[in-house]
Order: sequence, then C-alpha cells, then structure tokens
Amino acid sequence: MTGPLNVALAMGADVAEKVFPSDRLARIAEASELRLLSPTPLGTFEGAYADAVLSEVDVLITGWGSPLIDAGVLDRAPRLRLIAHAGGSVKGHVGIAAWERGVAVCSANDANARPVAEFAVAMILLAGKQAFPLARIAARSADHVVSDDLYPDMGNHGKRVGIVGASRIGRRTMALLRPYDLDLVVYDPFLSDADAATLGATAVDLDELLRTSDVVSLHAPALPETRHLLDRAGIALLQNGAVVVNTARGALVDHDALTERVVRGEITAILDVTEPDELALDHPLRTADHAFLTPHIAGSMGRELARLADSAIDDARRMARGEPLASPVRLEELATQA
Amino acid sequence: MTGPLNVALAMGADVAEKVFPSDRLARIAEASELRLLSPTPLGTFEGAYADAVLSEVDVLITGWGSPLIDAGVLDRAPRLRLIAHAGGSVKGHVGIAAWERGVAVCSANDANARPVAEFAVAMILLAGKQAFPLARIAARSADHVVSDDLYPDMGNHGKRVGIVGASRIGRRTMALLRPYDLDLVVYDPFLSDADAATLGATAVDLDELLRTSDVVSLHAPALPETRHLLDRAGIALLQNGAVVVNTARGALVDHDALTERVVRGEITAILDVTEPDELALDHPLRTADHAFLTPHIAGSMGRELARLADSAIDDARRMARGEPLASPVRLEELATQA
Repeated sequence: MTGPLNVALAMGADVAEKVFPSDRLARIAEASELRLLSPTPLGTFEGAYADAVLSEVDVLITGWGSPLIDAGVLDRAPRLRLIAHAGGSVKGHVGIAAWERGVAVCSANDANARPVAEFAVAMILLAGKQAFPLARIAARSADHVVSDDLYPDMGNHGKRVGIVGASRIGRRTMALLRPYDLDLVVYDPFLSDADAATLGATAVDLDELLRTSDVVSLHAPALPETRHLLDRAGIALLQNGAVVVNTARGALVDHDALTERVVRGEITAILDVTEPDELALDHPLRTADHAFLTPHIAGSMGRELARLADSAIDDARRMARGEPLASPVRLEELATQA
Repeated sequence: MTGPLNVALAMGADVAEKVFPSDRLARIAEASELRLLSPTPLGTFEGAYADAVLSEVDVLITGWGSPLIDAGVLDRAPRLRLIAHAGGSVKGHVGIAAWERGVAVCSANDANARPVAEFAVAMILLAGKQAFPLARIAARSADHVVSDDLYPDMGNHGKRVGIVGASRIGRRTMALLRPYDLDLVVYDPFLSDADAATLGATAVDLDELLRTSDVVSLHAPALPETRHLLDRAGIALLQNGAVVVNTARGALVDHDALTERVVRGEITAILDVTEPDELALDHPLRTADHAFLTPHIAGSMGRELARLADSAIDDARRMARGEPLASPVRLEELATQA
C-alpha cells in the first residue's frame, strides 16, 4: 500500500444528500486508508472541476444520477482502480470499458436487495390473507365482514408461493420465507432443480407456476427478453383468488391484461411498480378493491440508504488494504441482471 | 389403554364447518386411538342429545361458540378426561371446575399464535416503510411521490420496534423479526431482563418503549388491568412518525386519543382490531391517510383453521396413548392470558 486512496463521489446532488449525509462522508474522512478529494459530488463529467477530480481519483463512488463512465471518462482518470456503486445495478453508470481496462467494479446490490426482499415478504404474507381487498370491503361496511366466507381459502397455512426469478432479491425473499408454512416454487431459466432445492423451493416452469400458485411474486430483471414476462396468456393462467406481487419492474407485466382481471375481482395485484411508473389519475388500478399500490418504496429508502454508502465505503477500504472486494460485479453478470 | 377414547365436538355449527370440515373429521375417524361419537357438534349442553353425548364422551373437542363447561356439565360427563380446545383462549369455554376435578385441558394457543405473529411481522415491516400513508398519498397524486422527502427516516435499517407484551404471540413475533435489521425492545411486567435478552430484545418500561420506538406492536392480553394500556398519556409519548400496530384487542387502546393524533398525521395506526369492533361508518380512522384497517383477520382464518383442528386431534391422540399433552393449559395461566 502506497498511502491512502483518493476517493470522490459521482452522483446527483440530491442523491448524495440522502446516501452520503455528513455521517457517511465522515466515515470516508475518518478511514485511514481513504482520502476524500472533495465532499462535492460530480453530477457531470464535463468541465474543469471534473477534470481536476478525475485526474487524481483512485476510487470513484457512484450513485443514482451518475453519468455513464465510458472510455472517454476513463481516459481522464488514469489512476482509477475502483468504481464502487452505492446503488443496485451499475447499468447506465459503468460502461464495459471499465472492465476492459481492468478497473474493478463493485455495487451495493446485496445491500439494495435487502429492503426489496423484506417488502416482498411482508406483501406475500398479506397476500395470503387477502388483506387488501378485505380492507377495502370492510372500509365501507357497517357490519362485521366475515372474511373467510368471502375467501374460504385465505390464510398462510400451506399456500403456494411462486417466485419468478431466482435473482439476488428472489433468493433472499425465499430465504426469508423459510420460517413460514408455505410451499415455495420458483421459475428461473438459469436455475437447476438442485439449486432450487437448496433454496427450499421446487423449480417449475412459468406456466405451472402461474397455474398453481396462490401468490406470484416477481423478482426478474427488466431486460428486453423479460418485457411482459407476465403477459396476457400468463395472466389468464392465474387461479381466481391468486395475488400478484410486483416489487421488481412494471415492464414485467402486461398491465392491460392484469387490470382486466383485477377489476373483475378475480385476482389481486399488489404493485410497488407499474407501467408506466405513474398511472393516469383515473386508472382503474388506483381504486380497484383488488389492487394495492405503493409508490416504488420497496428498494432502499431513507435510512436504508446508509447501507448502500457503507457497502461502497467498505469495498473501497478493502481495495486499499489489498483485500478481495465483498461485492464485485463481473462483466458477464450484466447481461442477466436488472 | 382400554380401547379408543370417545370423542365429541362442542362448538357452533358454523365454526365446526370451518374448523372441522370433512377431512378433519376423517382424521378423527381414522385414528385408531379415537372414536368419533357423532359428527354433529354440540352447540348447547341442553337437551337429550347433549345428555347422550356427555354420558359417553372421553374427549370433548371445543371451539368458538362452545358454551361454558361448568360443574353442572361435568356432572353429566363422568368419563370426561380431556377438553381439547381447537381455538385460542379457553376463557368462557372451560370453567375452573374442570381443573378441580382433574380433567385435562389443552388449547390450540400455539397454532393460533402463528398467523397473528406472521401478520404482525408483515405490518411491522410495512410500518417501517410508512407504506400505508404513502399509498394513500400516492393514490391521488398524478406525479411521482418522493417518499423519503415526506419520511426521511423511513426504512427498516436499525428501526426500533417496541413489542408490548411478551405473550405467546409477542414472543413469536420477536423470533420472526430476528432476520431483520431492527432494534427490538419489549415491555412486559412479567419479563426479566435476561428473558428479554434470550428473545433478542431489550426490556424497557412502557413509557420508554412508547417514547423511543418507531413502531409499537401490541401483543398484550385483554384483561381489566390492560384496558387502555395505551392510554391518552401513552399515546402522547409517541414520536411524530411512529406507527402503532394492533393485532391484539381494541380495548388495549384509547381510540379517541389515537384518532386525534392519526387524523393530524402525526402517527400511523395499523389496526386489525378496534374499539368498538365495528367503527361507525363516518369514523375518521376509516378514511384517514395515516390509518389502515383490516377486519380482524390476523388470527386463524380459512386454511389456517386446520392447524387448530390438528392441535386438538393430536393432543387427544396423545392422551389416548398415555403421552404428555403438547399444549396443556394450566389453571394459573388463565389469569394472565387473553
């Protein structure tokens, strides 16, 4: 080790305020292995300030709002050894030139997966109870609602939960569901039966998952080939009473087909993400008894953002100490990840 | 063992239909240790049918709607050895004469605690995300809601969760919360610091719990001395942004005081139970942004009821085989339980 590594931030100013408040900047400043070039994040790689920072930086900590680091940017950053992304996916932030030039890349994918999986678990448990349609029905009823007359099959005893995508988040969701009395099935084109078994689940194809699951939770990446993974034909396979939980990306679901069955009360949709991101004010999903929408809050929010900062800082310190990174991103992962 | 034990059911006909559908009755009929006197449950202990059943019964499986088994009923049931309650509390169903005469009593308390604890866990995780007020606010917003501008402290990273009552359900809730990154505190007048530590929590007094917790989850029994355990003074101690989760009993909370702070948006209330059970149609908690009400569904519902039947059947079989009961109810537990 030849002295501390120079660290700079590249992200939106609003993002930096949330992910790197003063106590997180202090963690960098106080780490003997690191030297913070400036507390002011690069919101752009244009201009003299960026020139100055890039010329000296060893570790660039990126976040949402960070522009793409391409070959041109790398040319101006001759000392750069690590891009530590304090967010989930590095797509759109790190070009393949980084890997080609041997710059290490890590991300806070693991830290970012935690709150999403936790949120999915909560929603899956409430899905099993039909909590959202029952809440809506009860809200306008003067009398006691006899819930299991409406949903004789409600309850989380032996319910089948179908996990679509054995992604980092999908795997963590399955792990968190282990203490519950649920029958887990999983669909992932890259998952073997044996791997599924180690996750406590049974591997099935997508059609079987959709046909047999009481709750379907989406954890696939948004890629061109996963657009409308849950398409009209798939949505038609869902049993009456089934619940779709989407904490992943709106593009995974054909919302027209989904809405039709939700409005008829045949299925319930619990959506933290939609397509488009903001539904029209008169969109039926906003008011349907069988829909419950949250405004994209499953991911790291508020105090959960500290974990992202810590993930990046911790890997920067590992790099400085010559230790292996905890959360490296390999180039070949990019194609199958969100 | 002198032959199979005679079994009969005592519960409401509607309850029997849900808790003992044909597949559960078949479990009794097929057990070599048991003999089902009749598939028709006693809904009353009056009359000739009750006389006939009581005169022969060894094991009475009770449920919701079962009238009190008092000394007079026991006089007519000379062979009775076990009252197996396929529900939670035996209060109102089993009089103390049963214990005095050496009739064993068991209940499905453990089985019944599971769904409540699971529901509480889901709601606690969503409470940490402020999911319910955010859902309401987003429902009427055409634009993206920047959730952590509204709730900068949102998220389940290091949040303090205060468990009121180390009951069976409270303990199970704490156990299920272990995999999460939460700071658990617990208040229970009968819990030692050491016992709290084994539950992964810190024992605190009620005022400290209310003053310092981000989420307060109620798991105390409804007793005369716990009426309005969360009273006006206690509710005033809650921090702005705090969330109250009640999956226990409405009587634990002063709803007037709660409503005032909820309507002002200072605190959020997630209530599966209220006082009274059915709020007036114009009650502010029905529509407040910071309230989310479900119609008393946390407990065993739908397919979760099978666990209650199995608990009673399994203990009846243990009794017949001369084995210790798995879920005995001791007389001294009655005073401190719901």
